Amino acid sequence: MTLHWRLMGRDGAARAGVLSTAHGEVETPVFMPVGTAGTVKAMTADAVRATGARMVLGNTYHLMLRPGAERVARLGGLHGMMDWHGPILTDSGGFQVMSLSELRKLTEDGVTFRSHVDGTKHHLTPERSVAIQHLLDADVTMCLDECTPFPATEEQAAVSMRLSMRWAKRCREAFAPREGYGLFGIVQGSTYPALRAESVAALTAIGFEGYAVGGLAVGEGQAAMFDVLDCTCPLLPEASARYLMGVGTPADILGAVARGIDMFDCVIPTRSGRTGRVYTRRGVLNMRNARHADDTGPIDPECGCPACSRHSRGYLHHLIRAEEMLGPMLLTWHNIQYYQDLMRGIRAAILAGRLAAHAAALQAGWGGGTGTTEGHSEEAR
Amino acid sequence: MTLHWRLMGRDGAARAGVLSTAHGEVETPVFMPVGTAGTVKAMTADAVRATGARMVLGNTYHLMLRPGAERVARLGGLHGMMDWHGPILTDSGGFQVMSLSELRKLTEDGVTFRSHVDGTKHHLTPERSVAIQHLLDADVTMCLDECTPFPATEEQAAVSMRLSMRWAKRCREAFAPREGYGLFGIVQGSTYPALRAESVAALTAIGFEGYAVGGLAVGEGQAAMFDVLDCTCPLLPEASARYLMGVGTPADILGAVARGIDMFDCVIPTRSGRTGRVYTRRGVLNMRNARHADDTGPIDPECGCPACSRHSRGYLHHLIRAEEMLGPMLLTWHNIQYYQDLMRGIRAAILAGRLAAHAAALQAGWGGGTGTTEGHSEEAR
Repeated sequence: MTLHWRLMGRDGAARAGVLSTAHGEVETPVFMPVGTAGTVKAMTADAVRATGARMVLGNTYHLMLRPGAERVARLGGLHGMMDWHGPILTDSGGFQVMSLSELRKLTEDGVTFRSHVDGTKHHLTPERSVAIQHLLDADVTMCLDECTPFPATEEQAAVSMRLSMRWAKRCREAFAPREGYGLFGIVQGSTYPALRAESVAALTAIGFEGYAVGGLAVGEGQAAMFDVLDCTCPLLPEASARYLMGVGTPADILGAVARGIDMFDCVIPTRSGRTGRVYTRRGVLNMRNARHADDTGPIDPECGCPACSRHSRGYLHHLIRAEEMLGPMLLTWHNIQYYQDLMRGIRAAILAGRLAAHAAALQAGWGGGTGTTEGHSEEAR
Repeated sequence: MTLHWRLMGRDGAARAGVLSTAHGEVETPVFMPVGTAGTVKAMTADAVRATGARMVLGNTYHLMLRPGAERVARLGGLHGMMDWHGPILTDSGGFQVMSLSELRKLTEDGVTFRSHVDGTKHHLTPERSVAIQHLLDADVTMCLDECTPFPATEEQAAVSMRLSMRWAKRCREAFAPREGYGLFGIVQGSTYPALRAESVAALTAIGFEGYAVGGLAVGEGQAAMFDVLDCTCPLLPEASARYLMGVGTPADILGAVARGIDMFDCVIPTRSGRTGRVYTRRGVLNMRNARHADDTGPIDPECGCPACSRHSRGYLHHLIRAEEMLGPMLLTWHNIQYYQDLMRGIRAAILAGRLAAHAAALQAGWGGGTGTTEGHSEEAR
């Protein structure tokens, strides 16, 4: 049996489930910390586990360039190399090829580009992307697609989406079925409902173990993103996991779960942690702010992470100002802890049939600044 | 009762003992990881504890400038702020004033300087240094001294040392006796045996809870350093702890223990870890070296740290090359673990009366060198 997802409970369109993989089970909705180049930045694998995170994401683009997919395989696959023994999802590499590489050229066959690391030339096809993800030993392999830029005309979005659908078929054919492993198709079509519907139809005709909604979180804004989910999620198969790629803030995740999404990844908690921004039950704080310098209280009194349970805001402010590595380490830990706590709370609320009330309480906390927070609105993407 | 040290066993001039402080007991010989600005760089307090380290060092100069001594006191003292509940030794600030600050001016009263952080003007006297270390809540306070530059003429060294001795008396008078806290005097006199003897006599006439040998590890080389220890250690009181400041490589420490030193601190394990250099039972490795890229073995098969027990050399090489923060985190952890294991092994050998054989075995492992570890075969497995 390949990777599969089963429903445990629902509340409106929101779903609580369990994803079963070769490396264990994961409760959904799930947030996957991003382990870009074989490490969740500034975190040991033990620290990631301590937050309750059970599944992480790896970036095919980064790993194929350095240390190289074949080398990762020789070093024990991504799980062994990273000391991460839970499930791993890898992206296809397509998104970063478009955003990071140089001299890229897209054809029907695939995409040719130069590495941003050392200028070497690479050719990525649907078949090669699947092969790389196999070498990495990803539990969830993502189809290579073209992440349609935003904004795009309906014609541009259609051409781009249809190429991704042809590539999805090639990925399906290239993917070797293995017990506990699966391949996810990616719905494209920009903000056009008819194209999203066409994309869902194309993917479900092929058949995948899960379905991602792609081409979002690229500048369209939260309202447009939710509109796409409103028209797309109802079309997706009930029995498979749904993954919203690259999303998002706590408010984005909350809204997407309410619309039927089960899986998330985003660099926000890790990247923000490195720059001193932290997510709390009372909104977002910038720990660089001088107002924290003499504050003996914790970032978030309800959080059990080491930054909150053992250190003061004043100390964390000092670490960030002094550019001590422990600052990013502790703040990243806190942010990942916050995201994991957020997901656990949302899942419990779905199972209890009280998601709407839970969402209202979360939003009141984020927006109900008490003068010790800097407001959640500040963090809008 | 103030801080005290008691002898548990000896082997030649080498001593095994226990230092009793307000924050617990520490077995000596001890290596104190350096927590410069209120953090052992790239390490959580839990990670430092996990290596077996029981005492750390803080830098008065860094802490007085940022976050400020009064602020550290408000944030719970250095112990509370760092989440480090074992003993802490702080230096006096004098060494970094001379090496890092700008526009410094030395008088009989003290030293005036500008902060390298923000250009603010500060005046550090023996009394202020002791007061700052009290605010930091250091278990061991160090006397403010002038670290005599190397090389120095005998006349220069004498003038400098005698100023330090007058300052030592002022520090003693300024220090408030407290249960479990103590003040250490610092022997100066450069490489001149007569001056070292004069300095010891001056300090022992004042009386301190411990005695440091200062002005070494400043470019004089290992042989000259050992010569100074050979002439100084026999003059120091038998009943007090002896601390060699800022030393050193594993070979430096081994030689100094054999000459009667009990306490050490050095940035080598932390700084080296951040640049990819690791200390092992088989010598020093540079993890940036391409030969490690496909190596599935550990840095040191006998080491129990996370870098060695869970990861390959190939992965650690990748992390350092990719400039991932986890590289410095894991390599620093390894180096501190190595230093702690080194000290435990040395202490056990002293108590068993087999230090010479143990030292020979360590040196054979490092590559047969009797000089500094730097001289060992760079890439010996």
